[in-house]
Amino acid sequence: MGIQIREGKKSDLPRALELIRELAEFEKAPHEVTNTVQQMEEDGFGASPIYGFFVAENEKEIVGLSLFYWRYSTWKGKRLYLEDIIVTEKERNQGIGKLLFDRTLLHALESNCTGMMWQVLEWNKPAINFYKKYQAKLDSEWVNCSLEKKQMEERVKK
Amino acid sequence: MGIQIREGKKSDLPRALELIRELAEFEKAPHEVTNTVQQMEEDGFGASPIYGFFVAENEKEIVGLSLFYWRYSTWKGKRLYLEDIIVTEKERNQGIGKLLFDRTLLHALESNCTGMMWQVLEWNKPAINFYKKYQAKLDSEWVNCSLEKKQMEERVKK
Repeated sequence: MGIQIREGKKSDLPRALELIRELAEFEKAPHEVTNTVQQMEEDGFGASPIYGFFVAENEKEIVGLSLFYWRYSTWKGKRLYLEDIIVTEKERNQGIGKLLFDRTLLHALESNCTGMMWQVLEWNKPAINFYKKYQAKLDSEWVNCSLEKKQMEERVKK
Repeated sequence: MGIQIREGKKSDLPRALELIRELAEFEKAPHEVTNTVQQMEEDGFGASPIYGFFVAENEKEIVGLSLFYWRYSTWKGKRLYLEDIIVTEKERNQGIGKLLFDRTLLHALESNCTGMMWQVLEWNKPAINFYKKYQAKLDSEWVNCSLEKKQMEERVKK
């Protein structure tokens, strides 16, 4: 299938954001994407980069990406967190997600992490089965909590 | 109660790790703490710091901490992630956790984050009630997945 996996560059960001938007549309939440190319340039290629990414490329274009950053476990130290794996719809079911996952796993080792982490939706059985092949630990006891900037600003005003 | 909240310094790390160990013992998992002061110095105060922390201090000693770092949402950009709030057992129920939470929330705004995130155990009702007062969004659809270094090394060998 002629897929190459390589590190993402600044010039890949417009296409990366297209893939991010494609996934959001697929999940029926396009309005949730408030990120921009300019913001991603600053956050990923500025003075203190917050994230990194790998891309999967065929002869013509980028067809997938994995985006990651570091987390810090008070118990276990530096961990790689895999935020997203995205493969464009028409290129799915060819193993491109696995190539991206394995490259990211290797990067966690190269970066001296004590482990890697990610999340999966509890109803996403194909993904869960994929991760079970790696004998990943799955833990559904935790609830994700979040506050948005606007709520936080209102809280601080009080 | 004379509690001061301030940014954590390198010299606070031995006490910080004591608090981390105290929590692990309380959770009956002391053997899970493989982190060390030296490692925390490198990870928090080296060339590329991965985390930051606030401490709560009374006249005598540090009695609590909150530890945080940046996460990156492909949809929403830079987010503060609150990894842990710890208050030493004998100083609980005086609002020290709230002081640490509010200081961390303020730091998320000061650091130009689009929001903040954390996790709570689904059976921890007092904590959940506390977060509901902030009108935090709670989402229990996600499963935490992880691989440890040893598993990853074995995988790469194949």
